[in-house]
Amino acid sequence: MKKIIAIYSLIKDEQVKEMQDLASNYRVLLHGDLTDEDFANIEIIFGWRSYLASKFDEGQLSSLKWIQKETAGLDKIPDRIRNNEDLLISNMKGIHAVPITENVFGYILGVARGIFTSIDRQVDRHWDKSFLNDLFSLKDKTIVIYGTGKIGQELAKTAKFFNMKTVGINTDGRQVDYFDENYQFEESYKHLKSAKFVVSSLPDIPSTNNIFNLDFFGKMSPQAYFVNIGRGATVDEAGLKEALDSGEIVGAYIDVTQIEPLPQESNLWDTSGLIISPHISGTIEHFRDDIYQIYKKNLISYLESGQLAVNEYNRQKGY
Amino acid sequence: MKKIIAIYSLIKDEQVKEMQDLASNYRVLLHGDLTDEDFANIEIIFGWRSYLASKFDEGQLSSLKWIQKETAGLDKIPDRIRNNEDLLISNMKGIHAVPITENVFGYILGVARGIFTSIDRQVDRHWDKSFLNDLFSLKDKTIVIYGTGKIGQELAKTAKFFNMKTVGINTDGRQVDYFDENYQFEESYKHLKSAKFVVSSLPDIPSTNNIFNLDFFGKMSPQAYFVNIGRGATVDEAGLKEALDSGEIVGAYIDVTQIEPLPQESNLWDTSGLIISPHISGTIEHFRDDIYQIYKKNLISYLESGQLAVNEYNRQKGY
Repeated sequence: MKKIIAIYSLIKDEQVKEMQDLASNYRVLLHGDLTDEDFANIEIIFGWRSYLASKFDEGQLSSLKWIQKETAGLDKIPDRIRNNEDLLISNMKGIHAVPITENVFGYILGVARGIFTSIDRQVDRHWDKSFLNDLFSLKDKTIVIYGTGKIGQELAKTAKFFNMKTVGINTDGRQVDYFDENYQFEESYKHLKSAKFVVSSLPDIPSTNNIFNLDFFGKMSPQAYFVNIGRGATVDEAGLKEALDSGEIVGAYIDVTQIEPLPQESNLWDTSGLIISPHISGTIEHFRDDIYQIYKKNLISYLESGQLAVNEYNRQKGY
Repeated sequence: MKKIIAIYSLIKDEQVKEMQDLASNYRVLLHGDLTDEDFANIEIIFGWRSYLASKFDEGQLSSLKWIQKETAGLDKIPDRIRNNEDLLISNMKGIHAVPITENVFGYILGVARGIFTSIDRQVDRHWDKSFLNDLFSLKDKTIVIYGTGKIGQELAKTAKFFNMKTVGINTDGRQVDYFDENYQFEESYKHLKSAKFVVSSLPDIPSTNNIFNLDFFGKMSPQAYFVNIGRGATVDEAGLKEALDSGEIVGAYIDVTQIEPLPQESNLWDTSGLIISPHISGTIEHFRDDIYQIYKKNLISYLESGQLAVNEYNRQKGY
């Protein structure tokens, strides 16, 4: 009986066909085509559904060896499965690096060049150049980036293109490509004052909870901007609002919030100097093509060696 | 009697001092320090004032050999002086290339990633992801750039960084760095449909008058965006408004208008899909430092060879 590759994510017909050609000793099946008897033969899952956790717990997925999630986050896969050392687990980490970076630089260039201010004045039909002296270029400005993974590196690469100084913050201060300097979190405070932009791409793990708070913003320059495209749980929102209201920082952009959707009654919506987008920064235009590249790379590697080529879940770090 | 370098633009004390050290056979004088007798000895003018034209006409600037303007445009220097072949004339062309490019990409990334839409929804306190499918990345998108001078090239260089396809339009279709393809104006129409962005950096000369009109916009894709950071006289504004209102194009950003300041009663202000900024895109943060780099480069060259190193006015082209 051939083992099964079960597909639970969006995929194109020609991609299924190519996958079947690559894995000729397997049956490649879309989840809708699985019969009850098939589950015992599933060796690989691309994507995920929550009912699979029960099936796994009940022993129905006895052949399962590898779960390749179609998202960067693995929070939909229960800990007991995610941390089961008999399983290979991989994610889509990095796939959002380019769109998120485009998003962040849309904001950074927009504030630097006065586009958002222009939009404000346009509403009043007012050709007003009074903010001319606030405009700046990115050259020689410092960007401090929390998180030096794929998103952080893409941000830093783009910042270097615009001739910025890049400072990366990670767990151990290790040197990472595209960063002029790297520090660990505890050392990062003393580098905040020189930053024009502080950007967080940090995940939601216990150690990052509310770390961007009023005390943190107070260490930034009053001419600086904070950006969060990581996870909402990392930002103490009352602290962010107070920092903006009291002038501890001049502006902020958040694509994620503590509670999503952000409730209509939240006082963040009309906080002056704050731009909010509805968790869209990582949106991928050609989603099926982009995730399929990771599927294919890992499938070829798995078939050859039983190992994955990219994006294996790191159980120690938790992401 | 030593000849004089007369300075009519903003300059720092230490820059004047360095200039005097470089040109020890000259007297370097700020315009406020010139006496009536000095004008006959002025060989070089950095900057410009309109009264200098009368002095020149009256024969008071009999030693004048070179005018280095402190702006990109030379329209403040009358034709009869600008085109006097006994004079060297140079400008600040190119100095605005980086800030203008930052501006244009602030807009391009902002529309691509839905930042302006997010700002609209934020006013309504509405966490609305309904525009998710409109978001896109720049990779493989085509940008058609009218004008392949320093601004056009900086735009193209940045577009290539974001993995766009770059098409440059110039007078003779000559190949220019950072452009995948180049065409002359007449050929450009057939390349418009494939463009996601059409950006103009064209100057205001007779041949560019109102060339971006309803007919032109009709040749673009209905999913495309038009950007003007060149001169307002190149855009037929009624045509732009109609193109946006009727959906010939999806959006536009103009930093320049036919009449500046744009009158409060103009119907451009509240045209849907149009963003207007008040002629700020070329604003330079460190103006004195940036223009001094050109002053110095040309002064060293002039003292050595009597020729200029960069930015000499092209009398044939008129810019």
